[in-house]
Amino acid sequence: MKKIINDPATVVAEALHGLAVAHPERLRVTTDPAVIVRTDAPVAGKVAVISGGGSGHEPLHGGFVGSGMLDAACPGAVFTSPTPDQVQAAVTATDAGAGALLLVKNYTGDVLNFETAAELAEATGTPVRSVLIDDDVAVADSTFTAGRRGVGGTLLLEKIVGAAAERGTDLDGCARLAASVVAGVRSMGVALTAPTVPHVGEPSFTLGADEMEIGIGIHGEPGRARVPLEDADRLVARLVDAIVSDLPFVAGDRVILFTNSMGGTPLLELYLAHGIAERLLAERGIEVARRLVGPYVTSLEMQGMSLTLLRADDQLLDLWDAPVCTPALRWGM
Amino acid sequence: MKKIINDPATVVAEALHGLAVAHPERLRVTTDPAVIVRTDAPVAGKVAVISGGGSGHEPLHGGFVGSGMLDAACPGAVFTSPTPDQVQAAVTATDAGAGALLLVKNYTGDVLNFETAAELAEATGTPVRSVLIDDDVAVADSTFTAGRRGVGGTLLLEKIVGAAAERGTDLDGCARLAASVVAGVRSMGVALTAPTVPHVGEPSFTLGADEMEIGIGIHGEPGRARVPLEDADRLVARLVDAIVSDLPFVAGDRVILFTNSMGGTPLLELYLAHGIAERLLAERGIEVARRLVGPYVTSLEMQGMSLTLLRADDQLLDLWDAPVCTPALRWGM
Repeated sequence: MKKIINDPATVVAEALHGLAVAHPERLRVTTDPAVIVRTDAPVAGKVAVISGGGSGHEPLHGGFVGSGMLDAACPGAVFTSPTPDQVQAAVTATDAGAGALLLVKNYTGDVLNFETAAELAEATGTPVRSVLIDDDVAVADSTFTAGRRGVGGTLLLEKIVGAAAERGTDLDGCARLAASVVAGVRSMGVALTAPTVPHVGEPSFTLGADEMEIGIGIHGEPGRARVPLEDADRLVARLVDAIVSDLPFVAGDRVILFTNSMGGTPLLELYLAHGIAERLLAERGIEVARRLVGPYVTSLEMQGMSLTLLRADDQLLDLWDAPVCTPALRWGM
Repeated sequence: MKKIINDPATVVAEALHGLAVAHPERLRVTTDPAVIVRTDAPVAGKVAVISGGGSGHEPLHGGFVGSGMLDAACPGAVFTSPTPDQVQAAVTATDAGAGALLLVKNYTGDVLNFETAAELAEATGTPVRSVLIDDDVAVADSTFTAGRRGVGGTLLLEKIVGAAAERGTDLDGCARLAASVVAGVRSMGVALTAPTVPHVGEPSFTLGADEMEIGIGIHGEPGRARVPLEDADRLVARLVDAIVSDLPFVAGDRVILFTNSMGGTPLLELYLAHGIAERLLAERGIEVARRLVGPYVTSLEMQGMSLTLLRADDQLLDLWDAPVCTPALRWGM
């Protein structure tokens, strides 16, 4: 295992320390339990927007803590759900009296632990609403999931709901908005190589030298098919076809297109793939109104990519454009 | 070779197309010769700041084209110098009468081709100044280089000089500023794995399963030593020691610390390493006044990292903080 670490047991804690010293003006990190909190939380009168999940997907979620996006993120062990006490501590640290919205990727452990935390927080008087994100069209059920998995769409959800909360939208309004984003967002990914979890020490799965996994999960869960390597045109067409036909997206739709690297795929290849995706969408009459390209929802050093499409009206585009100031996403301020 | 591409011969052109469609509000891409130009160039009265180099180091340089940083970038083939006609076309596209400053990484091919382009541009009446960046302390001479290589410090140079040019600093002032940045910046990197150049089809070098290359170049050029894998504390101490003792940086210095992923090293590990670097610098009495952490000066999918330190006075920090709006670096607007 080739990694820049000291001890698999302390990787997440040490990385969180590094995140904290790198971004002291935007976030602070508490330990025991581990929570990443924006420096100015709780923000008076504002709904607290909270997410979290296993570590190893950075910058998701900790890199999105800051003004205009998340109030707090709960980092679990690598590829492991955060515990209820982490989520409860996040609510306590950010509760400004307007309640908390939990954005939960659909994995069984996450769902259970966020649910437990929501009950604990409600019992202490904080109104809590939860929204599940399950944007991965690849498979109906998966290794760690009943129903569809939550993947790249999570970033779009966090940005848009974060912007609404920053503008003063109340808890019910934020929850409704989140549900509308979830209803209109779809993703699918592909892996060329497997990631290695530090405390496991060997690759999460085995792929032949000329194979790729279509519909991969962000923890290396199996996708739709293991197929021979193919060129970028065909590969991107596979992803676009699966995503577009699922919602379905239709001619005349305006979308936000998010072309995501799983970590190990370099920008040179990612931009190449992005150009193909834009062409294929234009051919279908789907208008790409905004785009994001980069490694944002990753799976450690896994080579691969995903595409995410969100059908977006003027309101969603306006919230997407709103100022954001986080370690990984920043504009307008 | 596992890559998301169509044909090794068209990778760069296709990636540039993707870059252009992803960022239409910030840059445009010309072909034949290939140049990435900020949309509003030439900017009246402004010195044109131009850089370039082989592709495969993205987001360097094309991702730094935009307001407050580069006016144009010249992307060569993968790991190959841009041609003189690319650089000349970049000067022509951005010349607003105030002259052009060429920021050149110290590789023999780049130096020659930028020099030829500078002569051609001067012959047509555009004043041109060139500044060499050679911040890599690892080795005195290298595979493609007489003298030291230009690596991560290039980003800091482009940001700071770009900010000065945006504020109206004249050509001589920009050149003096660039020279002062080059005088105060030092870097060193390490590789855990080798990158694969698309048109070569196999890894650029061979590293054993338990080996790493200390002082690696961004094209996989040999460094100081090939050593057994070691933990992050020792590895980061090696880099910090080499960099600090070179300038040398001393107690009381204020610095910008740039912790860079070579591409394949995930943020989890990079933040871990960054935290160690900050601690080691604090122990030496060196104040980290600003920091940047991420994959910015990469070597395709190579796993590894580099550290860059720039001694920074109030003027340099102010220029670092100045607004920038590029695909890969954005703040204050």
